[in-house]
Order: sequence, then C-alpha cells, then structure tokens
Amino acid sequence: MKLYYGPGACSFVPHVGLEAIRAATGEAFEAQAVKLHKGEQHSAEYLALNPLGLVPLLVVDGKPLTQIVAICDYLDRRCPQAGLLPADTWQRAQAMSTFAWMNNTVHPTFTHIFRSGKFADGEAAQAEIKRTAQGAFRDQLERIQSMAEKAAPFLLGDTLSFLDAYALVFLRWGGLAGIDPASLPAYQAYVGRLAAVAPVAAAMAREGIHLDTYRKQ
Amino acid sequence: MKLYYGPGACSFVPHVGLEAIRAATGEAFEAQAVKLHKGEQHSAEYLALNPLGLVPLLVVDGKPLTQIVAICDYLDRRCPQAGLLPADTWQRAQAMSTFAWMNNTVHPTFTHIFRSGKFADGEAAQAEIKRTAQGAFRDQLERIQSMAEKAAPFLLGDTLSFLDAYALVFLRWGGLAGIDPASLPAYQAYVGRLAAVAPVAAAMAREGIHLDTYRKQ
Repeated sequence: MKLYYGPGACSFVPHVGLEAIRAATGEAFEAQAVKLHKGEQHSAEYLALNPLGLVPLLVVDGKPLTQIVAICDYLDRRCPQAGLLPADTWQRAQAMSTFAWMNNTVHPTFTHIFRSGKFADGEAAQAEIKRTAQGAFRDQLERIQSMAEKAAPFLLGDTLSFLDAYALVFLRWGGLAGIDPASLPAYQAYVGRLAAVAPVAAAMAREGIHLDTYRKQ
Repeated sequence: MKLYYGPGACSFVPHVGLEAIRAATGEAFEAQAVKLHKGEQHSAEYLALNPLGLVPLLVVDGKPLTQIVAICDYLDRRCPQAGLLPADTWQRAQAMSTFAWMNNTVHPTFTHIFRSGKFADGEAAQAEIKRTAQGAFRDQLERIQSMAEKAAPFLLGDTLSFLDAYALVFLRWGGLAGIDPASLPAYQAYVGRLAAVAPVAAAMAREGIHLDTYRKQ
C-alpha cells in the first residue's frame, strides 16, 4: 500500500492508521508527500490517479482509492486487528457517525476559512464567509472538546482510532484559523497526550508537523 | 428499526435501503415523517434523539444513530443479503468512495444554494455563494451523469445501491436549484428507470415526492 499525503492535511488520518497497522501486524507501507502549496496534486501524473486532485489517495496493488472515509473503512476491513474502528456493529456505527460528521461538517467548515475563494469570487463575500465559518468552527471544536473530556484515554475508549487522528488535525487547523488551543484546555491536553502515542508521533515526524500552529492575529 | 425522514431530503437514501431490506428479508420498519419546513427537527423531543437537529435518524431498539453514511453502512452490515453495498472489500471501498464524495461534496454544494444564509449574513454575499454553488452543482451532476451513462442498469451494476438513491435525490434537488433535468438526458433517463424499481417507488410514494421538481426560473 502507498499513501499520498499532504503534510498537515486530512491525509494524516489514514497516515496514522497505516502506522497503527504496521505496529499491529508488521505490514509496511510507502508514504509519498504531495506538496499541496506547489500544486503537485494538479500534476497530470497525480490527476491520473485521482481526477479530483485531492489527498489522501491510497494505492493498493496499483489501484487508486480516494476519500478519507472510504480509505479508513477499507483499512479497518483489511486489518481489523489494529482496532482502528470498533468490531461491534453498533459501536462501529456510532464511530462512523462521528467520523462522517467530522468529514462532512467540521472539515468543510475549515475549508470555508482556508479557501473561501472556492465559495465566492468577491473579496467582501469571501471575508464574510470566513468570519461566519470561524464562528461555526469554534462551535464544532467545542463539541469535540466535550468528547475529549470523556476520552479514556481515546475518543472511543482504550484504543486509538481514526477519530483521534482527525481530532488532532482539527485542533492544528484551529490554530491556523486563529483559535488559540489554550482556549480549549481539555481538547489541548487530550491532543498533547495523543501526540505522544507511537503511531501518531511517527506520522507527525514523517509529515514534519507540530502542534503549535497558533499565532496571535 | 424506525427511520425519521424529511420528504425529499437525503433521508430518502436509507429509506430506499430499508425498503430494499424489507423486500430481501421481510424485515419491517417504521417510517416517521419530520416536517422540516415546520421546524419539527428542532423540537425538544427530536433534539433528544439527534442534538444536531438533522435527518436522517435511525432508531434501533430505542437507540439513535445519525449520519447518512453511518446509517447506510450499518444497514449493509446488518443485512448484507440486500446487496446495498458490494460484498467484495475492494469494490465496497470504491462504492464508499463515491458515497463519501456524494455526502461531503455534492450534498453540501446544494446546501449552499438552498441555505446560503448558513454561510454568510449579508444578502449580497448569500447571492454570490448561491451563484457559485449553482455552477459547482451543475459540474457535479455532470460527473454523476458520466457514471449514469455506464449504469448497468444501476451505478454499481446489477444491484440497487445507496448510490442510486442519492443520485435520484440530487437530480430532484437540481430541479429545485434551476437545473433542467432535460439538460442532463442520460442522468434523467437513468433516474426515470430508477423511479420504477420497487423499493424506490415505495419510498417515493411514502414521501409523496415526484421527479418533476424543475420550474423554469
């Protein structure tokens, strides 16, 4: 398996999953950085694998698979012993519900902040979109914080899951969006602990990313 | 199992799934309409089941499950013999990829048209958001049309899947967004055939919805 990832992007979620699978089973994987700021995701070579020009992309035996939810569901089915999603059908459904919310709600809210030009051409409209999304993103991070308060030590209990990796990504993005992680203390403490867990630390090191993305605006 | 649905909303996707499961196994389900235009999704009773105030909501043995991707994944795991997602792991992953794209990209694009006030307060910004999203939605429907051109007769081959139900929803929404379905002839023909398939027809009848949502603007 080969993962194409953008450092700090949502591809971090399957990246952590692949590290957890390696730890659980010894199965190796390749990791290929895609320099999103240089537009490498729009190269002909990349578009041949993913016509939408997005990360993550997982190539398995030469065949491409896109979309974070599909990749992670696939990794869990391929390697359930890594415990990246619950084995119990009902618990798994609840985990998928939170995962889907992260993917279809929290993630796009950040897109409105970071790439507001996708949603309107004019600068005034873009500024308004960004401001509105910043409020929504704050609310969403607070909802994740309420989950983090019950983490024991992970969101789903005693096993690292895809949800933890996504939660870490969002707090880093929050910093880029002007949200001081210190204003979400339980969330920040939980992510601080997460960053020390071996598969998370390994993926962070390969991507060259840190938790301190926040700069006073 | 009891499904809470909004007529014509995305809850149509698990609704069709439940009809297909009933056809395959005889397992009955309850269906409860939620009048979204009357704000019933914000009632205390409903919010107790889904704090986000959204449809669909599936209640199983008294316990709530939210998020369309999670509900459909659960229905498939509970009743794989209905064939609503492929059994083969790789084919299933590809289906989940398209499903996730529909859920996190196509669906929210329509939200920008139908509920632009969610993304900006000012009327000028909202009009710009709506106009931008109309162009994006058109592109996305054309991408689905290219899938529909290969439908045999369904998107995943010879078995009705959740993807077909979502595709039908989007073409109806396209009509509401001012996109004439006749301008997407292969898509329109495919959805016309779909509407005659028993589980689809049953869900449409219960929801009281039709395909002809388009009015010249």
